[in-house]
Amino acid sequence: MALMEISLMPVGQGTSMSKYIAQAIKVLAEEPGLEYEITSMGTNVLGEVDQLLAVAQKMHQRIKDAGAPRIVTMIKIDDRMDKPITLTSKLESLKAKLGKK
Amino acid sequence: MALMEISLMPVGQGTSMSKYIAQAIKVLAEEPGLEYEITSMGTNVLGEVDQLLAVAQKMHQRIKDAGAPRIVTMIKIDDRMDKPITLTSKLESLKAKLGKK
Amino acid sequence: MALMEISLMPVGQGTSMSKYIAQAIKVLAEEPGLEYEITSMGTNVLGEVDQLLAVAQKMHQRIKDAGAPRIVTMIKIDDRMDKPITLTSKLESLKAKLGKK
Amino acid sequence: MALMEISLMPVGQGTSMSKYIAQAIKVLAEEPGLEYEITSMGTNVLGEVDQLLAVAQKMHQRIKDAGAPRIVTMIKIDDRMDKPITLTSKLESLKAKLGKK
Repeated sequence: MALMEISLMPVGQGTSMSKYIAQAIKVLAEEPGLEYEITSMGTNVLGEVDQLLAVAQKMHQRIKDAGAPRIVTMIKIDDRMDKPITLTSKLESLKAKLGKK
Repeated sequence: MALMEISLMPVGQGTSMSKYIAQAIKVLAEEPGLEYEITSMGTNVLGEVDQLLAVAQKMHQRIKDAGAPRIVTMIKIDDRMDKPITLTSKLESLKAKLGKK
Repeated sequence: MALMEISLMPVGQGTSMSKYIAQAIKVLAEEPGLEYEITSMGTNVLGEVDQLLAVAQKMHQRIKDAGAPRIVTMIKIDDRMDKPITLTSKLESLKAKLGKK
Repeated sequence: MALMEISLMPVGQGTSMSKYIAQAIKVLAEEPGLEYEITSMGTNVLGEVDQLLAVAQKMHQRIKDAGAPRIVTMIKIDDRMDKPITLTSKLESLKAKLGKK
């Protein structure tokens, strides 16, 4: 499993983006069994890499369908073969180190 | 005020990064009056753009001091002049749209 | 058509990445009719969004196959509905503005 | 020395960004002794990390001064302590690997 952060920016429709981004996030709710978390700067999704990129394509398309004349989509995938990853494992590991001193 | 997402990757020291990233996050705790939030894919910090980039430089330097032979740092700044921004305002706006259906 | 910038980072195999990235770029040469350009900070690829994300998945997989224990892949897609985009159209438009002073 | 890729996006002023980005790139021409290269997806700049982030702040400010109501700026810094880096060293290393087959 890998963790993807996706951030979609409709361009050319004013400064407010949340109406469009809400449409894209609905795609995630429609995918059975996909874990995700919404943050201030992007949405984190857990899955296999091919599944993550397929859902990224659908989210991007949803914003296109909503009428945005230009879309800039940023995706970061962290794929770890040496140990299991969850939506919160990196955060927990970091907090443990911070707590330790 | 602007919102910065920063993500630092020490390279060349094995697959585990959290020991290094914890050092960088301690920089934030040392800055008086800086609001921040740690997430699974990065750290969000609220401030003026010059203040945010100055703290980014210190975080990057801290990882260099900790011995990483290569560091890849990613920064995204969302600077909005048309309305006030907080650590959670974008998330709240998005959740309001999602709730409205 | 959209323009994708992709940057792949194998983590946990030392500081040198180019051996792995060369493997990923060979994927592009194997895709018939795909235009791309290699730059210092990433590779730019021109195509439809679904085609771009499919090739991104193959490039990521190629680095996994080469033995990297962790991979961080960054993708930026600029998808423009209002005018045609090419590998160089954004650069040409910018240079024209710079030349005009 | 480190290599920075910077990409600035004015939001809320229509789909065309090159007029604004040209203003930001003029900042680079005004900095004595700074090497940079403009690409289709961003601008690469070579320098010390503190110098790079200082110039990033000026580029961002220039777009603010030009009237953009919202700006999203992305910065990636690749800082390598184990060997010297130039504007083209990563590209040359990659091409050498690709040439070797």
